[in-house]
Amino acid sequence: MSLKTARTEQAGGSGEQQDIIYGLHALHEVLRSGSGRLLRLYVARQDRQYAEIVQLARCQHIPVYLEARESLNRFVPNRHHQGIVGFVAAKSYASEEEILDHATHQPDPPLLVVLDGIEDPQNLGAILRTAEAAGVHGVFIPERRAVGLTAGVARASAGAIEYVRVAHTTNIGGLINRLQEQDITACALDLHAPVAYTSLDFRRPVALVFGKEGKGIRPGVAGKCHERAAIPMFGHIQSLNLSTTVGIVLFEMIRQRQAGEEKQKRST
Amino acid sequence: MSLKTARTEQAGGSGEQQDIIYGLHALHEVLRSGSGRLLRLYVARQDRQYAEIVQLARCQHIPVYLEARESLNRFVPNRHHQGIVGFVAAKSYASEEEILDHATHQPDPPLLVVLDGIEDPQNLGAILRTAEAAGVHGVFIPERRAVGLTAGVARASAGAIEYVRVAHTTNIGGLINRLQEQDITACALDLHAPVAYTSLDFRRPVALVFGKEGKGIRPGVAGKCHERAAIPMFGHIQSLNLSTTVGIVLFEMIRQRQAGEEKQKRST
Repeated sequence: MSLKTARTEQAGGSGEQQDIIYGLHALHEVLRSGSGRLLRLYVARQDRQYAEIVQLARCQHIPVYLEARESLNRFVPNRHHQGIVGFVAAKSYASEEEILDHATHQPDPPLLVVLDGIEDPQNLGAILRTAEAAGVHGVFIPERRAVGLTAGVARASAGAIEYVRVAHTTNIGGLINRLQEQDITACALDLHAPVAYTSLDFRRPVALVFGKEGKGIRPGVAGKCHERAAIPMFGHIQSLNLSTTVGIVLFEMIRQRQAGEEKQKRST
Repeated sequence: MSLKTARTEQAGGSGEQQDIIYGLHALHEVLRSGSGRLLRLYVARQDRQYAEIVQLARCQHIPVYLEARESLNRFVPNRHHQGIVGFVAAKSYASEEEILDHATHQPDPPLLVVLDGIEDPQNLGAILRTAEAAGVHGVFIPERRAVGLTAGVARASAGAIEYVRVAHTTNIGGLINRLQEQDITACALDLHAPVAYTSLDFRRPVALVFGKEGKGIRPGVAGKCHERAAIPMFGHIQSLNLSTTVGIVLFEMIRQRQAGEEKQKRST
């Protein structure tokens, strides 16, 4: 990602998490994306390129403050701000309902990912990147005792965070009940499950449920899931990196769904 | 990994890369593993637990030096050495011949991984972990312009580095020729290949060839490979993390080989 960001909590006393973005190119990109995430802009320079950005910001009703160049150092200590600094809303969460509504209105059967606690921003970023590449309709992460959508996660996701829907969930058990109401099968990836993940039928509407790095899925959550399966291991090391696990299962799902389509094509 | 290590180059002027391992538990593990990697031991304490380690080391003909506790700080600056410090040989490389010999004497068809340049120690460690879990017979990495088997790679591999054979290769083209002599098919994973990886027949003796992070496989190397295939992408982000890619392809290989065994069982 080309965005230069730093995270600040409760900047401006709003209580909302905000990221600082700085540099001419980075702010141009944010304004052009039309994401509506830019909250306010501080500008020190006034040449033509900057005038264009200021104009773009004013068209979008974003407050612009003209300041002395030195005063921008309070936001970006290394002075690399190029005379332009913006505050953007941290990547916002989708709601559970939004994701379920989106997933059930696609040509393909719903494909969701549920993370039962995840602590490493690198891992969450890598999972979001893989989920986006696999065309996942939405990802659920716990609200407590887990990493959220921080600037570090955004960087590790290689930009995927902008495209994949992520919702907070307070209670995974309750979420699994709501999935069932929509005929979505919750499949737990569990090292101790007696069957292999390749024996599950992934052509159905499915939510894949993964546990925490190194600890696996909690027994209470695994018990709520409709099916449980493991990835077979063939070495001395008895576990895979979480983001690798997610990739292996998601692309097995894609393989099954594409094989199903091929079969259907041949029979018509 | 529980091993506390630090890397030192040319310690003792031998020209060989060595790691420092310190702490009672870590050194006990290294001695018990019987890996023969411990080169010499410095001990400050002399109670019963330490006496046992010293005895183990002497049985294995490893030089032991008794020193004042403070003098061990020259090896481990943060003083967390617990009065015991060892120098171990950095994880040694297998030879090309060793890996080919090992792979061709297994009950299963050879399963090899070739990395055409890899720069991130985290990625190499994660790939070695996945390769070990998948039962890969050996991994080839370039000797130049790539990361080697450093302490950082060892940590990221979660211990897998101790079990998976890794060889340096100076010329990937030459290696592919030698693979062909052994009837091992070199399959390049290449974003631009026209067929999906799932259409390859992985039940044959196979070497998977992967390119560098972010850059993919070099055209010259891809051209030498016997087959080329891509992982299909379904999102805005058009690539996966390298270690995730390796995991997806290795476990598709395992799925095919297990499905083949099942079929054979049913027909007999």
